Amino acid sequence: MIKRYLMTPGPTPVPEDIMLLMAKPIVHHRTKEFKSVFKDTRELVKSVFQTKNDIAIFASSGTGAMEASVSNVLAENDTALSVAAGKFGERWGQIIRAFGANPVELSYEYGDFAKVEDIQKAIENNPKIKAVFMQASETSTGVFHPIDEIGLMLKEKFPEIVFVVDGITAIGAIDVKTDLWNIDIMITGSQKALMLPPGLSITSVSEKAKNMIAKTKNRYYYFDILKELASDGGSYTPAVTLIYGLNMALKKLLDEGLENVFKRHTLLAEATRAAVSSLGLELLAKKPANSLTAIKTPVDSTKVIEYMKSFGVDVSNGQGSLKGKIVRIAHLGYFDKSDILMAVSTLEMALKSSGVEFNFGAGIKKVMEIFLNEQ
Amino acid sequence: MIKRYLMTPGPTPVPEDIMLLMAKPIVHHRTKEFKSVFKDTRELVKSVFQTKNDIAIFASSGTGAMEASVSNVLAENDTALSVAAGKFGERWGQIIRAFGANPVELSYEYGDFAKVEDIQKAIENNPKIKAVFMQASETSTGVFHPIDEIGLMLKEKFPEIVFVVDGITAIGAIDVKTDLWNIDIMITGSQKALMLPPGLSITSVSEKAKNMIAKTKNRYYYFDILKELASDGGSYTPAVTLIYGLNMALKKLLDEGLENVFKRHTLLAEATRAAVSSLGLELLAKKPANSLTAIKTPVDSTKVIEYMKSFGVDVSNGQGSLKGKIVRIAHLGYFDKSDILMAVSTLEMALKSSGVEFNFGAGIKKVMEIFLNEQ
Repeated sequence: MIKRYLMTPGPTPVPEDIMLLMAKPIVHHRTKEFKSVFKDTRELVKSVFQTKNDIAIFASSGTGAMEASVSNVLAENDTALSVAAGKFGERWGQIIRAFGANPVELSYEYGDFAKVEDIQKAIENNPKIKAVFMQASETSTGVFHPIDEIGLMLKEKFPEIVFVVDGITAIGAIDVKTDLWNIDIMITGSQKALMLPPGLSITSVSEKAKNMIAKTKNRYYYFDILKELASDGGSYTPAVTLIYGLNMALKKLLDEGLENVFKRHTLLAEATRAAVSSLGLELLAKKPANSLTAIKTPVDSTKVIEYMKSFGVDVSNGQGSLKGKIVRIAHLGYFDKSDILMAVSTLEMALKSSGVEFNFGAGIKKVMEIFLNEQ
Repeated sequence: MIKRYLMTPGPTPVPEDIMLLMAKPIVHHRTKEFKSVFKDTRELVKSVFQTKNDIAIFASSGTGAMEASVSNVLAENDTALSVAAGKFGERWGQIIRAFGANPVELSYEYGDFAKVEDIQKAIENNPKIKAVFMQASETSTGVFHPIDEIGLMLKEKFPEIVFVVDGITAIGAIDVKTDLWNIDIMITGSQKALMLPPGLSITSVSEKAKNMIAKTKNRYYYFDILKELASDGGSYTPAVTLIYGLNMALKKLLDEGLENVFKRHTLLAEATRAAVSSLGLELLAKKPANSLTAIKTPVDSTKVIEYMKSFGVDVSNGQGSLKGKIVRIAHLGYFDKSDILMAVSTLEMALKSSGVEFNFGAGIKKVMEIFLNEQ
């Protein structure tokens, strides 16, 4: 008998009351009742996104919204800057190419973060650049990019450029100020800090982005952002149960208070990072995000993950060349202090069982000290 | 946002699949379908009780079955031995008196356990004693009484006496051999190691007990054991959803294998007790049960419990004169290693926050060492 603790950076655990709400009988999507919930949900999204921009909700994964932002903003042969410091950053380049546009790819080592001056230089060197595509937090490495500085630099130096940010593991976990930071298109998915099952992408779209989309032609039908924005209950059949779940999840976040939500994520992230340091281990991220922690393991991380799984704890391996080298522990969404106690104690046992020499018990003790002082 | 960890010695957590099964539409109780499930459930109960005796299932709490065993077995003015070493032992005396019979009360200090020689002596001194009523594990103190020795002594020396055991926090957690140990009436409730919500009592009744009940008159209607045994789907309206849940819960235990179930409980109990010792604390029980651990606290346990609650961990206080003096941590039923990691780490933080001086981190480290060696 093993209880399950889902600590992967998506999907993440779903609160029981949201699960039960989503088990209620299906409402038809072209009814007043549903349209009113849909409208209310879009308003709640704006609060959580910290934006006044319009909200598009697609039945898709987060990648669907990444595609929508590329195919709607870029025409064939258009040029865009894509910033990559991990697997999801690289995905921007792949999508841009798939839609016949030209990515200028600014690449960093895995674990590194984007520098505002590099982006400025890249745009100065490529005046054709119409849009910048990047992540807020890079889920494959646990890095948080300085999207605040980048957004403000773009606003000042290149006011025509559309700034597209994948906030899939940032929104609802990290204090990301969409409007203040000049983010034209902000994207998230349901299965991260919004505490829902996978199946929804949520995107905010600025007036500037809408104008660029209106002037642009490319190939898309389902991911028609303007059509979705103009609809009063989804351009095509919306994922009704997930919309109800999203409505409740957003209310939960706003009831807790966004400031408290960010504080909670900061506490959990800081405790995890302090434990890593107490164990004599290193983080992968040079500028770590508060939504997940990627830890370099001195032994094959696949074994570490396997051992943690025997305690019911599901954490993630590295992707691509990082496979076997890191463990990624999520703490975004429906996570509390108990999850960090579980994650760190099982990580320690896993390392010990793999023969790593370290001060056994030091990590969990550090976590307990931090929680004790915070209480 | 706080996740809840129910670690009280009843109610205990209910597995999600059992909850979902019980959410299915209600089946009428006088149908073939239900009767077949009821019959099957009684057979499964026999396996878990380790008995060939008949099974009575009442919609009641465990106390209902305690009452049934008294009112069915004892007539007015009958004499019975009741063994008390805690709140639930004392309840036997109260019920016996409520039904006009005379309890010979053998009492022990809270934390102590019954001695077979005391019971033998008490019966020798009171030849009118018709039945012996006692607990297997005393939930108020976490003690396990030597019901094996007592049962075998009764079988040898006093074969006429009916032996009634409240196994409410023993069945499904501790290897209690109903038939081998000569237990005529064995009682449990749904909300303990059977991993169900409260609402059912389950009782096995030997031929000897049935004969005594048939010859005895007292006042009862609802708790008519022989009527219930003779029914094919409950003497009155059974708690249909809980019967379905019980059926699934018993199958879960048998699928895990009773031996593995007892091993799991032993491991969790041993880890908890080892942590207590590493923290320099004392157990209340002189002979601890594997279903719960009662720990003497050097500070007001009410504060300790309050602090643990701030982490979502619900443990129990002492009852009666033990209130404020002990913490009772349950580990019976739907419990795994993660629960002990949570219980011990939050207990340590609670003690530290109350100013107790001890080797902070030593308890959780001990638990981790034990789990590591066992893995």
